[in-house]
Amino acid sequence: MNQDNFRKITPYVPGIQPGFSDMIKLNTNENPYPPSPMVGEASKNFDAGSLRLYPSVDVGPLRDALAEYHGYDRECMFIGVGSDDVLATVFQACFNSGRPVLFPEITYSFYEVWARLYNINTCKIPLKEDFTIDADAYIGVDNGGIVIANPNAPTSVAMAKSEIERIIKNNTDNVVVIDEAYVDFGGESVIDLVKSYDNLIVVRTFSKSRSLAGARIGYCVANPALISVIEAVRNSINSYTDNRPAIELGVASVKDEDYFRATIKKVVATRERLADELKKLGFRVLPSSANFVFAQPPAGISAVEVYEELAKKHIYVRHFNIKGIDNYLRITVGTDEQIDTMLSEVGRLLNK
Amino acid sequence: MNQDNFRKITPYVPGIQPGFSDMIKLNTNENPYPPSPMVGEASKNFDAGSLRLYPSVDVGPLRDALAEYHGYDRECMFIGVGSDDVLATVFQACFNSGRPVLFPEITYSFYEVWARLYNINTCKIPLKEDFTIDADAYIGVDNGGIVIANPNAPTSVAMAKSEIERIIKNNTDNVVVIDEAYVDFGGESVIDLVKSYDNLIVVRTFSKSRSLAGARIGYCVANPALISVIEAVRNSINSYTDNRPAIELGVASVKDEDYFRATIKKVVATRERLADELKKLGFRVLPSSANFVFAQPPAGISAVEVYEELAKKHIYVRHFNIKGIDNYLRITVGTDEQIDTMLSEVGRLLNK
Repeated sequence: MNQDNFRKITPYVPGIQPGFSDMIKLNTNENPYPPSPMVGEASKNFDAGSLRLYPSVDVGPLRDALAEYHGYDRECMFIGVGSDDVLATVFQACFNSGRPVLFPEITYSFYEVWARLYNINTCKIPLKEDFTIDADAYIGVDNGGIVIANPNAPTSVAMAKSEIERIIKNNTDNVVVIDEAYVDFGGESVIDLVKSYDNLIVVRTFSKSRSLAGARIGYCVANPALISVIEAVRNSINSYTDNRPAIELGVASVKDEDYFRATIKKVVATRERLADELKKLGFRVLPSSANFVFAQPPAGISAVEVYEELAKKHIYVRHFNIKGIDNYLRITVGTDEQIDTMLSEVGRLLNK
Repeated sequence: MNQDNFRKITPYVPGIQPGFSDMIKLNTNENPYPPSPMVGEASKNFDAGSLRLYPSVDVGPLRDALAEYHGYDRECMFIGVGSDDVLATVFQACFNSGRPVLFPEITYSFYEVWARLYNINTCKIPLKEDFTIDADAYIGVDNGGIVIANPNAPTSVAMAKSEIERIIKNNTDNVVVIDEAYVDFGGESVIDLVKSYDNLIVVRTFSKSRSLAGARIGYCVANPALISVIEAVRNSINSYTDNRPAIELGVASVKDEDYFRATIKKVVATRERLADELKKLGFRVLPSSANFVFAQPPAGISAVEVYEELAKKHIYVRHFNIKGIDNYLRITVGTDEQIDTMLSEVGRLLNK
């Protein structure tokens, strides 16, 4: 066959998913706790007979539930198959000017993959030395859009809402995407700023704080004019995306605010303990507002060595072979028991 | 905002989904019968706790089940969120030469939407007068790929396997996609030809013959080299697409061959009766190998009039305002009772 037919591209590589039954999986930022019991209830009551029909074309009930939850009209909501699907659609829909789209040099590495896929020019802005994002570097710069993860990944470091607002209001010609995948664990959300800025898109996911990674639900909130641009692209790819189970289980999750808050509280408490213990072991730990920590091992052992030794014990954390962070590990907050096992293994490695 | 940021595109428009509880919905080719009881069982037994984890990155169990079902290696299978998702990914991955991609002038209208979205040149080939596809028109023509729905939509007319093979073997430089969304209802599948031709992609869906439109499952079968090109594009958009419920319910469906065959038999029997009755009412009905019929009303009443009068009674069929077929209706095969209600309403309209 003619090879010129084929798109050549280097895809994003997610954390490995080995199948060991005894593994401790701290490498994809999943929630260690199950979703709300109301989700379990909705699953038990799900009418499999309804599957013969397509889902509602605009993700009706889930869109309504999320609109009500955030206090926006349904016209401000767009739902997709995880926040990756939402972000990919936003990239396709909103970054077509030819001017470079700005995002941090160290951030969620899928941004660069989507930019390559859709032939979007980019300009990657270095983080400050303390791994924070420098708002000034995004102001007064010619651009075709801005993408910022808050808290940032894989650093776990959050940005102040006032700083993000400064970026948004100084870039009103172009779209500013704030990816709030981890915001529920301690970041300051800018979702209320959608009321004030028609160039802001705030992206959220059910995969982390709502313990629904396996349901594939993400969404964004933006001005209705922006949402309709995103929807036109979506409806040029696939008319129906979130399936009936995702819609019903998603609605159940949104309705159980108490469980949601309680689960976040547990994860945050474990995170703080994890950070403290790692520091005691000599790690440098960045201040985390997410459900993971980003940590550099003490002198004498490299991040790769820790990663490999833990993997031998079927404990999986994430290492990125990326300049500037290649001596760090991203460790998902698991249950207290998982974290204790991991910490004692790390202590053993360090002879402590 | 700068309007040059935004992608302007005219999306595909699916059949309307009004919410009347008494409606007879014969406009989106859904199956009138529920999925297999084994799907219901799998749904009842679904472990909602597992939703905290991402689905298997390569749609593991469902991919294995389909590979076994069709007698191929798992490396020959690609699974997506409905066949629209699979086709959109195939278009992106395999039609990059700049040369025109060929498909019939009258066919599934999403092909043109994807071509526009991904800036793919196209050349639309007229059908023959009897609405069949002329294989010779696809042979000896410079092209960057070929897409054929078999049976074709919205015409319902099937193409002989030998004719399709002639197209495939005379176009070995480029990818030939055969969209078999409706093939289970009477077409001749070319899925076994994947063994012989490395340029063939056969696309299937769970939405029609498996009564799982609401689960969003589609797949394709092709040579492993082609599958890896498609997967690289998929993994540049979204690492996890089919969610855990879709995977588990899909596997259950594949395992119940008896129910699958029995349901198809019922739909085909109703289709034949529907076609006969429409002919008795003076309609021209094309020979259908699908779960719908394509029919032209008798002189004296137009397709639009029939469409509108039926809609007033909350009976929804599909009308396409497209030159060459604008006096036809696409009518999904419903239950016998739904079809009887629809036929008696049509009889009333014709004073018969």
